[in-house]
Amino acid sequence: MRQSFDESTDPSFGPRHAPLIREAMTRQALDGFLIPHEDEHQNEYLPAANDRLAWATGFTGSAGAAVILKDKAAVFVDGRYTLQVRDQVDAKVFEIRDLIEGGVPAYLSETAKNGWTIGYDPHLHSPDSLERLRAAASKAGASLKAVEANPLDEAWGSARPGQPQAAVVPHPLDFSGEDSAAKRARIGEALADEGAEAAVLTAPASLAWLFNVRGGDVIRSPLPLGQAILDKDGSARVFLDPAKISADLPAWLGNSVRLEAPDALPAALASLKGRKVLVDPSLTSAWYFDALAAAGAEVVRGGDPTALPRACKNGVEIAGTRRAHVRDGAALTRFLHWIATEAQETLPDELTVVSKLEAFREATGALKDLSFDTIAGAGPNGAVVHYRPTSRTNRRVELGSLLLVDSGAQYLDGTTDVTRTMAIGEPSAEMKDRFTRVLKGHLALARVRFPEGTSGSAVDILARAALWSAGLDYDHGTGHGVGSYLGVHEGPHRIAKAPNNVAFKPGMIVSNEPGYYKTGAYGIRIENLQFVTQAAAIEGGERPMLGFETLTLAPIDRHAIAPELLTAEERAQLNAYHARVLGEIGPLVAGVVATWLHKVCAPI
Amino acid sequence: MRQSFDESTDPSFGPRHAPLIREAMTRQALDGFLIPHEDEHQNEYLPAANDRLAWATGFTGSAGAAVILKDKAAVFVDGRYTLQVRDQVDAKVFEIRDLIEGGVPAYLSETAKNGWTIGYDPHLHSPDSLERLRAAASKAGASLKAVEANPLDEAWGSARPGQPQAAVVPHPLDFSGEDSAAKRARIGEALADEGAEAAVLTAPASLAWLFNVRGGDVIRSPLPLGQAILDKDGSARVFLDPAKISADLPAWLGNSVRLEAPDALPAALASLKGRKVLVDPSLTSAWYFDALAAAGAEVVRGGDPTALPRACKNGVEIAGTRRAHVRDGAALTRFLHWIATEAQETLPDELTVVSKLEAFREATGALKDLSFDTIAGAGPNGAVVHYRPTSRTNRRVELGSLLLVDSGAQYLDGTTDVTRTMAIGEPSAEMKDRFTRVLKGHLALARVRFPEGTSGSAVDILARAALWSAGLDYDHGTGHGVGSYLGVHEGPHRIAKAPNNVAFKPGMIVSNEPGYYKTGAYGIRIENLQFVTQAAAIEGGERPMLGFETLTLAPIDRHAIAPELLTAEERAQLNAYHARVLGEIGPLVAGVVATWLHKVCAPI
Repeated sequence: MRQSFDESTDPSFGPRHAPLIREAMTRQALDGFLIPHEDEHQNEYLPAANDRLAWATGFTGSAGAAVILKDKAAVFVDGRYTLQVRDQVDAKVFEIRDLIEGGVPAYLSETAKNGWTIGYDPHLHSPDSLERLRAAASKAGASLKAVEANPLDEAWGSARPGQPQAAVVPHPLDFSGEDSAAKRARIGEALADEGAEAAVLTAPASLAWLFNVRGGDVIRSPLPLGQAILDKDGSARVFLDPAKISADLPAWLGNSVRLEAPDALPAALASLKGRKVLVDPSLTSAWYFDALAAAGAEVVRGGDPTALPRACKNGVEIAGTRRAHVRDGAALTRFLHWIATEAQETLPDELTVVSKLEAFREATGALKDLSFDTIAGAGPNGAVVHYRPTSRTNRRVELGSLLLVDSGAQYLDGTTDVTRTMAIGEPSAEMKDRFTRVLKGHLALARVRFPEGTSGSAVDILARAALWSAGLDYDHGTGHGVGSYLGVHEGPHRIAKAPNNVAFKPGMIVSNEPGYYKTGAYGIRIENLQFVTQAAAIEGGERPMLGFETLTLAPIDRHAIAPELLTAEERAQLNAYHARVLGEIGPLVAGVVATWLHKVCAPI
Repeated sequence: MRQSFDESTDPSFGPRHAPLIREAMTRQALDGFLIPHEDEHQNEYLPAANDRLAWATGFTGSAGAAVILKDKAAVFVDGRYTLQVRDQVDAKVFEIRDLIEGGVPAYLSETAKNGWTIGYDPHLHSPDSLERLRAAASKAGASLKAVEANPLDEAWGSARPGQPQAAVVPHPLDFSGEDSAAKRARIGEALADEGAEAAVLTAPASLAWLFNVRGGDVIRSPLPLGQAILDKDGSARVFLDPAKISADLPAWLGNSVRLEAPDALPAALASLKGRKVLVDPSLTSAWYFDALAAAGAEVVRGGDPTALPRACKNGVEIAGTRRAHVRDGAALTRFLHWIATEAQETLPDELTVVSKLEAFREATGALKDLSFDTIAGAGPNGAVVHYRPTSRTNRRVELGSLLLVDSGAQYLDGTTDVTRTMAIGEPSAEMKDRFTRVLKGHLALARVRFPEGTSGSAVDILARAALWSAGLDYDHGTGHGVGSYLGVHEGPHRIAKAPNNVAFKPGMIVSNEPGYYKTGAYGIRIENLQFVTQAAAIEGGERPMLGFETLTLAPIDRHAIAPELLTAEERAQLNAYHARVLGEIGPLVAGVVATWLHKVCAPI
């Protein structure tokens, strides 16, 4: 089993660790200390050694923050984690706050005292986030101070795991579709448009994509931790722990890429004196900005130059992700068949569900990793948006309930991410109503055609409208970008309520995952990945339109649908999708699974 | 007649005036000069004395800019004005460019030369816009320089009209609903939330609202040009030309408001030394920021503190605007009856259409002004989005065509803005298809229910979806805020593709005006005003939802509708709207108009 059901933290972490952190703060004369979830690479998913927020508070979600002041403390999570945080964190030590509404800045302005010094680790905060925090602290008359040594790391001491050292290996052209020299040449040329001569890259996904390499430093993602400096001429210096350099890596990178040890980085930054250097203030830690400024480099603040090219998958990547989705769809179909048949009798627990799904994926022979720990939420656990079942929280599925399973796989040719919600026994009329509303939103977002220039925040409402009209909603975004055998969450595009300026471009992969959650009762989410295409010409149409093509192939549970709520257009769309699932997955399954698939893909 | 059909400019303006401006530039050793559309008050609609862009180029639209360099020049307009600008501006003198795509900044980076000095008038640019312009110029190695004397004004010389001097008069509580002292007290208190002790206000609408006064300095809007400094204690200094102060104004403003002459303003700003002063960098000219910085005040950049309170109309204002819309709806209904009957025989020209509509509104006895010059576009003129008919462009309506009329009225109790597109004779199948798609968008945006926190950019797609699905779109925003006997375009909310963070709040008035334009053929727009309300509780709903209630009351032309394209829900919504029109307007019209209204409001 790749997935563990142990809990890496418990609610005693706060009471045990916060005092140690406060002691270390006191030694540095700090009145407070900021603990972001992100690490030195602004990662969302972290190596254990960098999961400082979990160690300090017990909270293990993929986004959040904490503030420890000398007299109080708070932990901040978003709507996906409001239930989980109560389970994992001792609220007597950490007040639980909303990460989005007000968030850390509002807490600082409210609670910091005049004259206080609040420490932060400049390796962990982007300048963009620091700016807001600094303004908030100053409202209260407090000031922020960059620490030399992180007091949390001091408190953690020898108990802290070591930094990961997974081998960094070539990612062949058969999967990447464009060689690194070509990528570096075009990104290097594009630097001039930003008025820059070089770029500092610290996002692991940027390194992986630009140099066509993959690593294993970050859980569930083939990401290498490291840094790079790209010159406008396409040459580069890459900073990697020598222990991670695989035998064939130097030859793969070629002559114009110099491999160096991490301790050479400060001198390399210093050598940029007088040059115009592009750095992304939302992805790169403040430490780099400080180091470049100290070196006398001219910092150009701008977006990571690899982000948009990486998001727009080329033909080879699209062909790869199609193969990955067919393979994954067949495994998932076997799993859904098991849920629809045997599991309706045996009523397994969540851990069995997770193990079974992992076994079906493992049986493909191509599984490199899960793309994240499978979420299998039975009944009320389904309402915990980013629930991960553990031995402690494990529940059996029950008749008359819903089971939500959100999972994904990392294959060399593509990354998958799919959610299906299945009826166990006969769901209630309310469950069917809600499921169908979520489905209507999912279908609307799958079939929309839109002109060039449209961003994800413009189409988000399509996924919510059927819920809104019933006075319902869900507290998470609707879609995120997905990498090509890379991170399962990647930007710069996004479908969400929050304004986003990044227009959809052909080749972008994005998830389509509306949901509905009834606390204490059940959760529903329907998620497919889809990618942006040039829409077929419309007769009489005047403008080139874009659209989506669905990648994920697995039946949507008809037992949870209230067909009378679907319009004729929605029925036709659902039927066409199921016909495609049958056409592409049908030939890969046999016997009872094939028979079952025929039945559940029949027109509704 | 209030509306004139003369043209205030002609295409000879560019060839005649650009050389004069260049001469004045040369005297100041400038290599270029920036000409924004906005004036000293960042007004959209301008007094003639401040319409510098029109004098320089001939272009009279309500948004735009020009750049005059020593060797070339360009004028910049948005999608609404692409046709009009070609008609008004000599393209041999001013290259025609897109205001949004790239705009002035891209032009500067492309065409300015290393070492050039580009002048700007600091009274005319907001710091927000200057920042982008400065960055763009610096890319080309050029620099911006604030001029002491505007070279365009020097070139204009004695031909320039005088500044307007309309009387500033009290706006009674019966219309404003909240007295100025109360407004000033709550805005003054709110300054603390922004960390400010005083605010400088330069937007005429802010003055009018905060002090419950109205003026007449700006065409078609009862706006007074002036400035104010509001203290956190609610006291204020107001700077107005003494010639504009009406007899009862001082008593109306009371003891805590000091009236001063404009030439006292620099000293007043200087007196803010050491104080924290809130100024809106998007609404207030750079000159104020420079003056406050020179005075040693601590400038707090933040939103105009009156903008959001002004946008959220109180009960008295909502009651007033309802009355205004019933009154205006009756006048409009008489006009639409004339179009539907007599005009189908006489086939009048656009000027007659405009005059007729104005006469119906004048006959209410309550008309203070038009809220903008009526747009009456027959056939191809309807495709010119912000077309204003003149004696030169005037066309007769023709059978088998569409007539687009966008108009509004200023009444003491409210401002209206409404667009109807009417069939003349029998429209083509294509016209009906397009009209019905625009109507579907309009209806979707009128019936949507949405949770708190939703902004206009999230719902914009609802108005476009039926067009997008046919490969069509329109190049303007979908909705703008509207004042209460104030400007017909006001923020801070807006419905448009461009990201907007301002969430809808109860009481906000917003237009709902999707359109479709076929160049050289016809234009369609359907516009009602609607305001944000708490939506009725939905059975089983979990979240408080907001919605819209329509203000505008006038029939939508059923002869232009293809009913088979409407869903049952859309038909029911249209029928309910028409039943309401009949119920509220029916009692106010008689004879043939009443008979006709019954017929056109019958269920479809």
